[in-house]
Amino acid sequence: MSIRVGIFGYGNLGRGVECAVRQNPDMELAAVFTRRDPASVKILSEGVPVLHADEAVSMRDKIDVMILCGGSATDLPVQTPAMVQHFCVIDSFDTHAKIPAHFAAVDEAARAAGNVAIISVGWDPGLFSLNRMYAGAILPDGCDYTFWGKGVSQGHSDAIRRVKGVKNGKQYTIPVPAALDAVRSGANPELTTREKHTRECFVVAEEGADLAAIEREIKEMPNYFADYDTTVHFITEEELQRDHSGIPHGGFVIRSGKTGWNGEHQHLIEYSLKLDSNPEFTSSVLVAYARAAYRMKKEGMLGCKTVLDVPPAYLSPKSGEELRSSLL
Amino acid sequence: MSIRVGIFGYGNLGRGVECAVRQNPDMELAAVFTRRDPASVKILSEGVPVLHADEAVSMRDKIDVMILCGGSATDLPVQTPAMVQHFCVIDSFDTHAKIPAHFAAVDEAARAAGNVAIISVGWDPGLFSLNRMYAGAILPDGCDYTFWGKGVSQGHSDAIRRVKGVKNGKQYTIPVPAALDAVRSGANPELTTREKHTRECFVVAEEGADLAAIEREIKEMPNYFADYDTTVHFITEEELQRDHSGIPHGGFVIRSGKTGWNGEHQHLIEYSLKLDSNPEFTSSVLVAYARAAYRMKKEGMLGCKTVLDVPPAYLSPKSGEELRSSLL
Repeated sequence: MSIRVGIFGYGNLGRGVECAVRQNPDMELAAVFTRRDPASVKILSEGVPVLHADEAVSMRDKIDVMILCGGSATDLPVQTPAMVQHFCVIDSFDTHAKIPAHFAAVDEAARAAGNVAIISVGWDPGLFSLNRMYAGAILPDGCDYTFWGKGVSQGHSDAIRRVKGVKNGKQYTIPVPAALDAVRSGANPELTTREKHTRECFVVAEEGADLAAIEREIKEMPNYFADYDTTVHFITEEELQRDHSGIPHGGFVIRSGKTGWNGEHQHLIEYSLKLDSNPEFTSSVLVAYARAAYRMKKEGMLGCKTVLDVPPAYLSPKSGEELRSSLL
Repeated sequence: MSIRVGIFGYGNLGRGVECAVRQNPDMELAAVFTRRDPASVKILSEGVPVLHADEAVSMRDKIDVMILCGGSATDLPVQTPAMVQHFCVIDSFDTHAKIPAHFAAVDEAARAAGNVAIISVGWDPGLFSLNRMYAGAILPDGCDYTFWGKGVSQGHSDAIRRVKGVKNGKQYTIPVPAALDAVRSGANPELTTREKHTRECFVVAEEGADLAAIEREIKEMPNYFADYDTTVHFITEEELQRDHSGIPHGGFVIRSGKTGWNGEHQHLIEYSLKLDSNPEFTSSVLVAYARAAYRMKKEGMLGCKTVLDVPPAYLSPKSGEELRSSLL
């Protein structure tokens, strides 16, 4: 029997989940839920109902795992604790500082309902967190480094678009090659914000706007750009659509550590992602963890989990025997 | 209270475990067991008893986890099922084809005794297996690639030393840069054995030996060298000791896969290790999994596990709360 997946929220992430479910033969898409008028939402799959978000609870016997595809700012803090009362759920809550509070709220609701929730799934938080944890446990005497990019930061692109005179824009976060090299050398450098990443902006200005003023305002923007070496390129809307319509991302998690009686041996553990589509990759991670949530519930587990709590084998459609003989 | 660790077998791996235990404040070394005369074995730690292997069982109340540091060919198939009758155990069994049989034997003994065993721990099998599993579950439509090196292969070094006229020798396995590049490009190439790795041999010949014959015999040796582009360098014993006395290793696990409704987006997940000391790094992995075995037993679990079964958080000395707030 297939694992019946529901998608709650149909933006980039929801569409990514739809695509990922199709790549997994042990899963099927049961329904898509939206807060918009369902008649206005056209999905890729044929024969799958699009329903209003308010109807989700009525599908509780037809869905094994609900994948929540809303945003971390206002959607998930409400939706995850609400939905876990009826379904096993997966979310990609990524406001790092608020994870403990979100965990507590979801855990309480999940335990009361006897369901499993896995929160903060994706690549950071998610796969990057996993790698920081494994590497730190294995090399306790060492340093951690996380670099992001090259990739599009939605938050920084939004910040550019709020600048007066800007019609459209996109921002790439780029790791500094010299910083990566220094880390890989085992030198355990202390790196400032400016030394780790640069920011590159592609900006479409409004007709007659003051380009120098736009560039200055971007580069001096606190929190977003002031602490970085930032470059600003002015391009046309046509160029932006042609060359910068993708949502690539990626990054590196590196731990450099020592072993030996006197720390005489150096080791480097490096994990990296190079992603053509950030939302589709994130969705693929969500879907693998949906399989884990389904299995954990079947085995009688309950409550809120993160990627750090889930036994790796639960993510795979293969049995323990198959995994041991083919892949270990 | 500390986790009390025993070391069974005191070679390179055992010494590495001794060093790793010292880096973990929640652990202490309880005893070292050897099949040699204990009086002849000098360990690094002060105040820790060195006992004969036959005395291990008498220490069952003083050791929480026994880390088995013997070889996969003849030691572990006997020692792991025997020791798990008295202790939680960790081994680094690495004969891939025999893992299912070893698992079955250890699982039966572990369940009968109510203990936890984690087998095939290290980096391959071990961390590389984990990464193959995670990446394969996340990108089901993709290809896996594992490259080893640059590093010393003990098996190939031994094979060189068995050649007539060879006094000493060391072999390095080296990934072919062009093959790595092709994989990273997302082209999903089919690579032959020869295309993936080269082998470089440093050989000390006996006085008056036929160097051309040695080189030919090495390069044509079936299984070990015949399928590879192999280079042979003749050097002096002094040069071998000076330049090739380390045991470095490492490698790469790469998965290249597609997502999207029509596979239109490409992704690359890459995990790599660069290790100055293969045995010390492997030991560090064993010690982290010793912590996991101790906790799993405390929580009432039992039986044989592999790295694929162990929830990641069990490896870390930090609590779930600490991990979520600091690292997720």
